[in-house]
Amino acid sequence: MSNTPAGTNAETAGLPLVEKKVFGLPQHTTLHGALIKNVRIGWESYGTLNAAKDNVILVTHFFSGTSHAAGRYKPDDPLPGYWDAIIGPGKAIDTDKFFVISSDTLVNMNVKDPTVVTTGPASIDPDTGQPYGMRFPIVTMRDFVNVQKALLDSLGIQKLYAVAGPSMGSLQAFEWAAAYPDMVQRVIAAIGGAEENAFLIGWLNLWAAPIRLDPNWNEGDYYGRAEPIRGLTEALKVVTMQALQWPWVDGMFGRRWADESKDPAASFSNRFAVEGWLEEIATARAALCDANHFLYLVKANQLFLTGHGATVEEGLARIKASVLLIASAEDLVFPLPRHMGALKDKLAAQGLRVAYTQAITGAFGHLDGINNIAKAGDAIATFLESPSG
Amino acid sequence: MSNTPAGTNAETAGLPLVEKKVFGLPQHTTLHGALIKNVRIGWESYGTLNAAKDNVILVTHFFSGTSHAAGRYKPDDPLPGYWDAIIGPGKAIDTDKFFVISSDTLVNMNVKDPTVVTTGPASIDPDTGQPYGMRFPIVTMRDFVNVQKALLDSLGIQKLYAVAGPSMGSLQAFEWAAAYPDMVQRVIAAIGGAEENAFLIGWLNLWAAPIRLDPNWNEGDYYGRAEPIRGLTEALKVVTMQALQWPWVDGMFGRRWADESKDPAASFSNRFAVEGWLEEIATARAALCDANHFLYLVKANQLFLTGHGATVEEGLARIKASVLLIASAEDLVFPLPRHMGALKDKLAAQGLRVAYTQAITGAFGHLDGINNIAKAGDAIATFLESPSG
Repeated sequence: MSNTPAGTNAETAGLPLVEKKVFGLPQHTTLHGALIKNVRIGWESYGTLNAAKDNVILVTHFFSGTSHAAGRYKPDDPLPGYWDAIIGPGKAIDTDKFFVISSDTLVNMNVKDPTVVTTGPASIDPDTGQPYGMRFPIVTMRDFVNVQKALLDSLGIQKLYAVAGPSMGSLQAFEWAAAYPDMVQRVIAAIGGAEENAFLIGWLNLWAAPIRLDPNWNEGDYYGRAEPIRGLTEALKVVTMQALQWPWVDGMFGRRWADESKDPAASFSNRFAVEGWLEEIATARAALCDANHFLYLVKANQLFLTGHGATVEEGLARIKASVLLIASAEDLVFPLPRHMGALKDKLAAQGLRVAYTQAITGAFGHLDGINNIAKAGDAIATFLESPSG
Repeated sequence: MSNTPAGTNAETAGLPLVEKKVFGLPQHTTLHGALIKNVRIGWESYGTLNAAKDNVILVTHFFSGTSHAAGRYKPDDPLPGYWDAIIGPGKAIDTDKFFVISSDTLVNMNVKDPTVVTTGPASIDPDTGQPYGMRFPIVTMRDFVNVQKALLDSLGIQKLYAVAGPSMGSLQAFEWAAAYPDMVQRVIAAIGGAEENAFLIGWLNLWAAPIRLDPNWNEGDYYGRAEPIRGLTEALKVVTMQALQWPWVDGMFGRRWADESKDPAASFSNRFAVEGWLEEIATARAALCDANHFLYLVKANQLFLTGHGATVEEGLARIKASVLLIASAEDLVFPLPRHMGALKDKLAAQGLRVAYTQAITGAFGHLDGINNIAKAGDAIATFLESPSG
């Protein structure tokens, strides 16, 4: 879902259109030792790679996001990429200076979005000629990172000026910094954290539950027949609500009815406006998604711990990058600043440069990390000008 | 669920055991004009009704609660009623002074709890000899209140010194004060509000969704065959999580595994400790619950607006009682103090006495309104000594 006000075409007039590309990797061995053949992910970039190849900023996407962080694929696209407010010529992440690159993750959930290229349970297993279903290996943020690493290797990129992302994008940024400490100079982590804690692990379980309840899910074997759209829609309703907050939802819907002539008190079929809207937006999103991919994403998020070692401290101790933490005060997914404050202290205790801003405010809760990221623009620009490590 | 530390039997030693009674009403006409025959609800009381019958405090229960607000039914009950910390001899709601009465609501969800007596979709429709299922009329907080009113009428009680309750109990307390303004002298509303707003209406939709997804639900016709236990269990998992908060959940479970020998990274069947606990607690709760009752409770909550008129202001304008608002700062269900602050202003603007306390703090979020209600004990005692209206 995007609640970003539709940008006018004038905003991107004169800018090059974004081209979606495909990166192929003959095989990838997962963190836990499984082999995935014929990995393909989509990617895109903004700005120009310099000769020294040292002006690269990798942007990593959120749970329900894609590589499309900025710009437009076509002049008449209704919306630009999700962080367009801070990525572009003269913007906080200035594409006149930086080469910004972004890829679809493994098991990206938007399998049916024609602009998305990913590999996951809906992909054909070359060994069987059939979709993997739940036989696809469990993957982790480290696997997302390692496939991105292979993409960067293919472009001859050996240094990352920064890795930046919101929410699940932050998890990838921390994982990058812990997995390849000599390669990552800066981390920009918005509305995210360095680990998933018990409360979020529990909530992620609830996000996934409706899919498993849908009889069409059939233990993940539904390809070529009726798909678990109902369960997937309910799952996306939960994600949508948790990414939001009271002020926008109450202001937008109040106690209005979905249909003026159908009193919710008269029938279980009659709904409030907020219920109708949730159904509508989740149905639209479900049409682009694959239910098994959603389950794999949930698992990858639950498993996340920076460095994938025994403790988060062990992972953070590997990091050499300087870190910018960006909090949204009313965030229900990563409740900040409480957790980010503790994280800041842990990073600073290791002698790392850590900057922290709570500049993001708004009516959207977690989603302010997308919709109102421009409010952190100055903090981001300043951080990018400061020394690394 | 209760996270209240188990009281020792010594706490209630010498106190009379609580006796659960049944109130029958030949018929009840709902707010929306439907007739329900042969209504039965359970009730209990603590303390002694005085001769003037003017020392009555009605306690109204929360969404998943029952009439059991205080004391024990049997000497070896592991836990006393949910608000035992503030109801009893010498406690904030002093049963040496007050006659405290509490009843099960209509459509109480704990149908299979042998101590609960309620009327709802699992009840037998006298006209057909079959369970109502989804043919039971939609009911509202006003209906809960009106059945309680009939119970009080049967006891000759014409004044309520106070109506007090947590969460959905607060909704009933406000409804009482708006429906019977000359009868209700004081309202004690903890972790609740005077209306359900869009965000909570949306969340309630998500609470109900898993039940409808369960094929055993079968549009509510499942009596006498396999019940939608899986869906009900998932619904109760959502309720459980939303009633809690990070500090307790994280402190209790961290990133531990449900089974030390089963790494969650190795299989979708292997879970984190918090997931195992959620499943366990929700399974235990589901065994006492009816899925249709859960759906009717969700509907009654979504429909709630004090006075059930056009606006909340219209309902609040009817109230003559003085009001004590009790907030839990980290509440995810009724996010206080933000909403309670606005409510306080609305009530004060009508010339009502309004007291407000944010004394409840703890690690449990919404549930601190149960587990840590003792922290508001002084505020409650003071409020009960102050003049009404």
